[in-house]
This record gives sequence, structure tokens and C-alpha cells, in this order.
Amino acid sequence: MPPTTAARPAFRTFPAPADLPEPLPEPTRADLRLDVVLGALSDPLRIGIVRALLLEAEAFDHTCGWFGLDRPKSTLTHHFRVLREAGLLRQRQYGLERRSQVRVDDLQARFPGLLDLIAAWTPPEAP
Amino acid sequence: MPPTTAARPAFRTFPAPADLPEPLPEPTRADLRLDVVLGALSDPLRIGIVRALLLEAEAFDHTCGWFGLDRPKSTLTHHFRVLREAGLLRQRQYGLERRSQVRVDDLQARFPGLLDLIAAWTPPEAP
Repeated sequence: MPPTTAARPAFRTFPAPADLPEPLPEPTRADLRLDVVLGALSDPLRIGIVRALLLEAEAFDHTCGWFGLDRPKSTLTHHFRVLREAGLLRQRQYGLERRSQVRVDDLQARFPGLLDLIAAWTPPEAP
Repeated sequence: MPPTTAARPAFRTFPAPADLPEPLPEPTRADLRLDVVLGALSDPLRIGIVRALLLEAEAFDHTCGWFGLDRPKSTLTHHFRVLREAGLLRQRQYGLERRSQVRVDDLQARFPGLLDLIAAWTPPEAP
């Protein structure tokens, strides 16, 4: 087990429910690339999505509606896809709904400290 | 002083020589933004530049020639500027030469763990 610091926030994860749909296509843990992951996080909205799940998740995974983001659905779908394809989020299709969770174990294993950075991020002041 | 882990690599920094030129324009420590910093690192060449300075610097700052990168000068100038404008590198103009160093203190203060992530990054296999 890697050493942790006293300041390490607790990330909110929940046990997997029964009968989960299969995850949508995503890179394997071994295929995660730091440059791609950082690129996916180069947008405040996208860092904010990952941070909200890390610190405020209330269930195993969440629909994009849960985040309360004031953007068109197609825009949100795009941002969630970027995060999934980079390997930050795992997404599952539940009928018409797509729900997302952070790949906490995979990211901690490959990029220790990354999730702490995201959790410590402060959203910019609203304009 | 923040807690550190046993695995923390030593970053190579050198004392400032006398009569340094002024730094080129850059964001202040308070103005550093994580999303912008991560965006600047979303390119393997740029992560590689910061990593090389962190782990292999041999002097206070280095010209782009020091890195041995096989790219046109104008391309390198662009990549170094992106890193400076995001706040990762400090650059100074020495006559015709521009030299770069990592803003280690500023980045450690604002984004603890970020430099460790960069130092731990493994360059992709050469194609």
C-alpha cells in the first residue's frame, strides 16, 4: 500500500449494485496515458465533473443530470465521452440513461496523486 | 512543511547565478490555474521537457538545444512558450538565447503532487 498524507481527502465510492450493465468502451488500466488524461482535464467543466464525483457522489454512478450543469445535453455528452475515452470515467448505459463513475482504483494505481490534485482544485469564480 | 512520501524524487534545482536577465512575462503564482497547467501538459513533448528539467537539469536554466529534441526551432519555441504562459516554466532571454527552468517552488505551493506525477511519467515507446 502506498504511503498517504494526512491531508488526503476521502473519495466517495459505493459498492457495485447487482446486475450492472457492461461498461462502455474504455482504455484498460495499462493503456491509460498521462498526457491524454491531463488533456481531458484541461477544461474547468471536465475537472469539475471528476471533482464532484470524487467529493460528492451519492451513489455508485450518476447521470449527467445529477451534476446540475447548465449546458446543452449534447455538450455534456461530449465532455463525458472525452473523460471516458481518456480513462477518467467509467460509463454504463442503463436503458436510456448513461451513468458515470470515476475509475478511482485504476487512476490511483497508474497516477498516484492525480485524484488528490483534482479534489484540491478550486473552481474559478463565476463570471 | 507538507508531508512527503518516501518515493518522492529529488528535483534538480541550482542556485541562481548573478546578473540574471528578468524573466519573460508569466502568470504570478496566485494566477496559476490547474486546468491551464494540465492543458499545457497534454502533449508528450511538453511533459517530457518539464520532466527532463526536473530530473536531469545540469544548470540553473537550459536552452531548447540542451534537450536534444528533433523538431524545428519554431515548433520548440511554441512548445516552450505554452509551458511558460501556463506557468510551468520560467524563461529568460540571454542575448540571442532563451533559457528555461521549472517553477518548482510555485508549482509545489499551488499544486502539491503535480511535479511528482510529471517526474513519474514514462515517455511513450518510440514509434
